[in-house]
Amino acid sequence: MSTEARAEIGVTGLSVMGRNLARNLARNGFSVALHNRTVARTNSLVADHGDEGDFIPSESMADFVASLKRPRAVIVMVKAGKATDAVIDELVPLLEKDDIVIDAGNAHFVDTARRERDLAAKGLHFVGTGVSGGEEGALLGPSIMPGGSAESYRKLGPIFEKIAAQVDGTPCCVHVGPGAAGHFVKMVHNGIEYADMQLIAEAYDLLRAGLGASPAEIAEIFREWNSGDLDSFLIQITAEVLAHTDGKTGQPFIDVVQDRAEQKGTGRWTVQSALDLGVPITGIAEATFARSLSGHVAQRAAALSTYEGRAADTDIAGLVEDRKQFVEDVRNALYASKIVAYAQGFDHIRAGSKDNDWGIDPGAMATIWRGGCIIRAKFLDRIREVYAENPHLESLLVAPYFAEAVANGFESWRRVLVTAIRGGVPTPVFSSSLAYVDALRRPRLPAALIQGLRDNFGAHTYQRVDRDGSFHTMWADDKREVDA
Amino acid sequence: MSTEARAEIGVTGLSVMGRNLARNLARNGFSVALHNRTVARTNSLVADHGDEGDFIPSESMADFVASLKRPRAVIVMVKAGKATDAVIDELVPLLEKDDIVIDAGNAHFVDTARRERDLAAKGLHFVGTGVSGGEEGALLGPSIMPGGSAESYRKLGPIFEKIAAQVDGTPCCVHVGPGAAGHFVKMVHNGIEYADMQLIAEAYDLLRAGLGASPAEIAEIFREWNSGDLDSFLIQITAEVLAHTDGKTGQPFIDVVQDRAEQKGTGRWTVQSALDLGVPITGIAEATFARSLSGHVAQRAAALSTYEGRAADTDIAGLVEDRKQFVEDVRNALYASKIVAYAQGFDHIRAGSKDNDWGIDPGAMATIWRGGCIIRAKFLDRIREVYAENPHLESLLVAPYFAEAVANGFESWRRVLVTAIRGGVPTPVFSSSLAYVDALRRPRLPAALIQGLRDNFGAHTYQRVDRDGSFHTMWADDKREVDA
Repeated sequence: MSTEARAEIGVTGLSVMGRNLARNLARNGFSVALHNRTVARTNSLVADHGDEGDFIPSESMADFVASLKRPRAVIVMVKAGKATDAVIDELVPLLEKDDIVIDAGNAHFVDTARRERDLAAKGLHFVGTGVSGGEEGALLGPSIMPGGSAESYRKLGPIFEKIAAQVDGTPCCVHVGPGAAGHFVKMVHNGIEYADMQLIAEAYDLLRAGLGASPAEIAEIFREWNSGDLDSFLIQITAEVLAHTDGKTGQPFIDVVQDRAEQKGTGRWTVQSALDLGVPITGIAEATFARSLSGHVAQRAAALSTYEGRAADTDIAGLVEDRKQFVEDVRNALYASKIVAYAQGFDHIRAGSKDNDWGIDPGAMATIWRGGCIIRAKFLDRIREVYAENPHLESLLVAPYFAEAVANGFESWRRVLVTAIRGGVPTPVFSSSLAYVDALRRPRLPAALIQGLRDNFGAHTYQRVDRDGSFHTMWADDKREVDA
Repeated sequence: MSTEARAEIGVTGLSVMGRNLARNLARNGFSVALHNRTVARTNSLVADHGDEGDFIPSESMADFVASLKRPRAVIVMVKAGKATDAVIDELVPLLEKDDIVIDAGNAHFVDTARRERDLAAKGLHFVGTGVSGGEEGALLGPSIMPGGSAESYRKLGPIFEKIAAQVDGTPCCVHVGPGAAGHFVKMVHNGIEYADMQLIAEAYDLLRAGLGASPAEIAEIFREWNSGDLDSFLIQITAEVLAHTDGKTGQPFIDVVQDRAEQKGTGRWTVQSALDLGVPITGIAEATFARSLSGHVAQRAAALSTYEGRAADTDIAGLVEDRKQFVEDVRNALYASKIVAYAQGFDHIRAGSKDNDWGIDPGAMATIWRGGCIIRAKFLDRIREVYAENPHLESLLVAPYFAEAVANGFESWRRVLVTAIRGGVPTPVFSSSLAYVDALRRPRLPAALIQGLRDNFGAHTYQRVDRDGSFHTMWADDKREVDA
């Protein structure tokens, strides 16, 4: 089979995400080379959707590469990890100088950095690209977060910006930064998504237990919330999921689903990276651990029987006096906690960017997350505006717009937590987020005591408030202070 | 210089910890070979403490090795990381089959696993050993947590068990398990120490703000607590630090110390490892992040001025009606939260042991932590007993003794948190620990909603409560459920 090199871009790996990305590219007028390890998938894509645009299928990787115009741009859409390395190893010998390999999967940014170094040494561009939006986003317009060289973006930018979601005429795609910047930002995006979803879950739990309301009634509340500050994709589908009735039993769908949340790793990676960078992303950490906890079935059963009837003062329903106020309180607590989750996530991006010299523009991230991705929300437009006003903001929490929202929410937030704590309903991210703000704004933290203890048992030294230097107290001796 | 091979054990790296370990060995009757990169330290140790036992100093690594009886046992006590690798690289060519290299620093257990593999391939034993107790412990009896081969422990056991702290006639040293088990357990020990210290810091902050008491008055409260369930080294030195007056200013010492807590990495490693293993150690995570947060000076200043006067309903002092009850409530909350921190830490050990086939006996860990180490406490004897009764305990929280303590503490715990939240005092680990227990004992978690959302946006599937299998709802279609 001899192939004319006419495809503008290629996709290898045609499971649902790759398939939909390829269709999105073709629908937007790009000629798309196709390849998959088993040729049946390639053929079914052409059979089902061949009329949507210009597809150039190949059976072998060699033909696939030969079908691409130079410099070639190849999107690899396979499982993160070894599968990605295997495809890259197969591809690379077939490529030539200046060709571009794009990994659009959910790779760990550390792997992306390694792959970019390896391919750069061979004269190739490697572009780790975050793509968010699930199956539907891939087809209709995702949020795209490409890293890699500026040179590669000159070729890819016009393509990606065309197939990305568009908000107010602006594409949800921008060159995030060099190297692994794209996958790093996608990782933090997913971390924020973990916090966002856990917050919604806590709000639902409070409403259900506090009001004794049915899932369908709570769906209505979320639907209403979706017309205000909380307007977002996740709130919208929460209403949809809560309103759904299980076809098999006639029960609310949510009640037939096992309450064990799974995870694929990006939340965990986010927290691990934040620990390395010293960025307290407590909300994302609690959300990640909440998922783990839900899966510890034997432990949960043992704890349930151990504490049955001995834990909370009272049922939370008995604590809710003003139902309307309670709903409004939960809404305000959710909104304030959400601001904290995003503040922590943007801090993380800032620290990662600084640590790696990526020069990431936080406002641009908010801009490309406004559409296409899972955390898309009206809210992100506010973040965009806030960074446009002040790109060097110390925290989203001190931007006047968000500070106002948080300050106005404090009363509700504290009231909800008091009710949750008294009623025994766990709200780890609501609680942790408030503790974060209260700690950040506190004039003196008891961290001074921690330093004192560390000096006492380990001679780790401390600093003083009234002079420079490091000091140690001779605790076991005459308690003299010495310079350290 | 020709050297007779008569030393039973050697120490290279004679900064304060190595020096004190060497003295401890000599005082216990072992002949100790000494080596340090700069010979001055070796000489000063012999000059200052040569009368304490049998020291055999060497100027070169070759002479040091030559002075050791075979199989040689060499303790390396240098900075974790590259310095450790450098010393090992220098040592190894001088050693012979069956010799033992002991790393007694705070190495990351992943590095220890690598080093053990490398040295085992050369016919040598590598023993990563946790040593806790600070300077004083190293000299007078630390808690020692050796990993490595059972064969190496046959030589090292009698030495280490002799120099370790002794509690009720039992040495605070046991063979933790093969490979990196020792450093893993030492890491978790330090993680628990982070949580323990942050809990003490939160208790102090609550007492100071809630009672308007002076540090000296709070020192008295801690001194009293130290005679009950909370009896522990950390509570004891908290009283000492709080009671101390700064010599330069006459102020309470604690008020002249900068409130920015530092860290050396073991807390961070603990949380990162727990994330990999899926063990929710929320208290240790919040404690680690609390230290990071305290160091973000510019952000704290910005938040302080942004929220000044707009955050809490009221000052916490106005919320404390019964001062005696408040003190007792804080004590109970501290004790219950401490149980949670240990429950999480022991879960982490169990998961790490299972993941690596280390066969770690949790009760033995509690036993060797009763003395010598930083977290030594009466409390650990209870943990030892609880595991002796049931080595397969699902969680410390369901052991009758601790369940009783937690259940009896709930009322106080909830009351303290309500006061803290209303008064705006951040208590991230108190809060997170209660949320953990409330989640663990909750019959249904809103994790079901998270699974529903994941299925909605990403076709991640879910399980049902009423039948086996994985399922997906066709959300965008007719909402039929299909097998996945």
